[in-house]
Amino acid sequence: MNQRLRQDAERIVRAAIHAVGPDEAVRRALSGCTLGDRIYLVAVGKAAWRMAQAALRHLPVLPRGGIVITKYGHVQGELPGVVCLEAGHPVPDENTYRATQAVLDMTADLCPEDCVLFLLSGGGSALFEKPMVAAEEMEAVTRKLLACGAGIIEINAIRKRLSCVKGGRFAQWCHPARVEAVILSDVLGDSPAMIASGPVTEDSMPWDGAEKIVLRYGLSVSPAALSCLKKELPKQLCHVHTQVIGSVRELCLAAAEECRLLGYEPAVLTDHLDCEAREAGRFLADILYTHSGQGRKMAFLAGGETVVHLTGGGLGGRNQELALAAAGGLAGLPDAALISVGSDGTDGPTDAAGGYVDGDSEKALMEMGFEISKVLTENDAYHALKAVNGLIFTGPTGTNVNDIAVGLIG
Amino acid sequence: MNQRLRQDAERIVRAAIHAVGPDEAVRRALSGCTLGDRIYLVAVGKAAWRMAQAALRHLPVLPRGGIVITKYGHVQGELPGVVCLEAGHPVPDENTYRATQAVLDMTADLCPEDCVLFLLSGGGSALFEKPMVAAEEMEAVTRKLLACGAGIIEINAIRKRLSCVKGGRFAQWCHPARVEAVILSDVLGDSPAMIASGPVTEDSMPWDGAEKIVLRYGLSVSPAALSCLKKELPKQLCHVHTQVIGSVRELCLAAAEECRLLGYEPAVLTDHLDCEAREAGRFLADILYTHSGQGRKMAFLAGGETVVHLTGGGLGGRNQELALAAAGGLAGLPDAALISVGSDGTDGPTDAAGGYVDGDSEKALMEMGFEISKVLTENDAYHALKAVNGLIFTGPTGTNVNDIAVGLIG
Repeated sequence: MNQRLRQDAERIVRAAIHAVGPDEAVRRALSGCTLGDRIYLVAVGKAAWRMAQAALRHLPVLPRGGIVITKYGHVQGELPGVVCLEAGHPVPDENTYRATQAVLDMTADLCPEDCVLFLLSGGGSALFEKPMVAAEEMEAVTRKLLACGAGIIEINAIRKRLSCVKGGRFAQWCHPARVEAVILSDVLGDSPAMIASGPVTEDSMPWDGAEKIVLRYGLSVSPAALSCLKKELPKQLCHVHTQVIGSVRELCLAAAEECRLLGYEPAVLTDHLDCEAREAGRFLADILYTHSGQGRKMAFLAGGETVVHLTGGGLGGRNQELALAAAGGLAGLPDAALISVGSDGTDGPTDAAGGYVDGDSEKALMEMGFEISKVLTENDAYHALKAVNGLIFTGPTGTNVNDIAVGLIG
Repeated sequence: MNQRLRQDAERIVRAAIHAVGPDEAVRRALSGCTLGDRIYLVAVGKAAWRMAQAALRHLPVLPRGGIVITKYGHVQGELPGVVCLEAGHPVPDENTYRATQAVLDMTADLCPEDCVLFLLSGGGSALFEKPMVAAEEMEAVTRKLLACGAGIIEINAIRKRLSCVKGGRFAQWCHPARVEAVILSDVLGDSPAMIASGPVTEDSMPWDGAEKIVLRYGLSVSPAALSCLKKELPKQLCHVHTQVIGSVRELCLAAAEECRLLGYEPAVLTDHLDCEAREAGRFLADILYTHSGQGRKMAFLAGGETVVHLTGGGLGGRNQELALAAAGGLAGLPDAALISVGSDGTDGPTDAAGGYVDGDSEKALMEMGFEISKVLTENDAYHALKAVNGLIFTGPTGTNVNDIAVGLIG
């Protein structure tokens, strides 16, 4: 193994993950907010507790009130002046509705001098909800839409309109107080209207769009639901200021910055990678092969979320498969390496964050009795990489903004 | 369809194919040769006739003798002072051996002032052959090696040693005349020793390598064959000067040059692409998606040869699949397009050279009733692309240096 490349590769992905982590990213975002001194803190999502903790550390004053809603088991301690609540995920439950009501109570009757600091992260869709109709009907409608083949955009369009807080309605509720929204993204492409169905974001669908969906699928809904679907969602929310932080794009840019510091010339190929993991690995290996041996230190970066089609019953994850699949193409190259990791520190159902390979890996694998194509067919990248010290461990990172693969020449 | 991008895309690949075509590439190569005025021309391979024609156009004097050996149906007319012969491909036949003997007769007893201009292209392995043992034994050995799972490198190592002309032996035969070799490459990676098993190229395998292969697979061969396998191949051929032309690398560089002329900033990602065609298309679409909408004219180039795993019985080719698979990722982008073509002008068993898609393609396909994922499963890219005017036709180009995909933002 090329220890120098291995060290550089790990340093680059660790620096990138740190930069998009809640602490660092929230700190940067707050420096871009105009908060005033009448702050109400609302944090919702899987990273809510950590985002709230980071915010409290950097706020100029203690908030007048604060509520965290996160997944069961995700509250990691008390926070001064903030009530921490846990609720169901991925399916909302009674605690979801109760916690959401607590937020609505806290933010009722605000004045223009007030500011709601809204910290949103992945999982918010289930954790922040108050249906306008009976929760049972909401779920029944969702099930019916899924059964008749509706797409996620159509389903969300309906669900937003049946919700008191989605589709910009929470922001509307906070008016005339200003809303400073800081959104930690885990959605490829980063549309704030998609993340948690956009509680503080304008909806862009035409006003009769939801009715058309009901007609298209011949959906039968209660009169109450139908009247909700006819109601316009907010189209303009001038009192809201939104910053999307910790996106996969930021992950790539932070990695590129660290590459530069280490003397590599970085090229961000994409922050939207979504093809088959092993083929992405082969493509990246082909790119490295082509640029190898020219005496230039270069880095090729690809962020996103690849897919794995299971053909075997082994242990692994998409990042480990991507890395392993590259080993053949890199074989024998003295100056090339590839690392791929999940920013949450967990790749597939394993304790590893991802994998690393270089020009020596294929030979090492063969010596240990691993044939790459066979390992990939068995989806057993974990054991193969483990045998050649190719697993990357970070532990849980507290963030989740997709994956990053970094190919190095140097 | 974005007509401007379509026009640029076609212009780029046509210019690239022209630049690596026999005419242009041979002309450039000859200007780098020291030929003298005692020239013997030997052209072998599928492009032999066109390479010979191009050479005659640019040689300072008529050759003293000349022989073209190409595939049946590939001689396109008479050439002054050159005998044009046709023979079996991909399996050598009696005409192969007769034509090869004619070349050996012409190049026997040359003197140091003579120069053999050796023009080699793909298919040369079958078209230029004179076995040292009975042709039947040569074929039997090959079959046995294939049956016991030997790799192509091992098979070629044996075949070279059973041949009078492979593995550098033709160059040895021409000594003391100089050999100017111009090789039109269709092998990924461009090792001259691989192309047509290297009639004028040193062999790099240790002298006992062939015997070891025989032992490894427990091959039974005749005493005559065994004594051939023990004979050293030429290790140094100082009288040979080789230029590899029209490689996929040149194809990429020529495309990049045309991109520059059209105002696109080109990046050659790789000239070694070898992953699954549809996944390469998705990866390239992801790259274009990421760089779309920034107001910069950019081009991303990938040369090589992707693979297709057949799952259906439709009509298509790897370039058409690559392009079609990108259509989803490009959907709605006003400034992005992707073209992929085979440099020989034939993609799979179709009359098209490849395919083109842009931001409008997915919608057009849907309107015509084509669902991309279904079409890919059926391997039927041809009919889908045809319906939306996404096929690229060049006709036979007279060259064969793998494929090129060009993604444009502009």
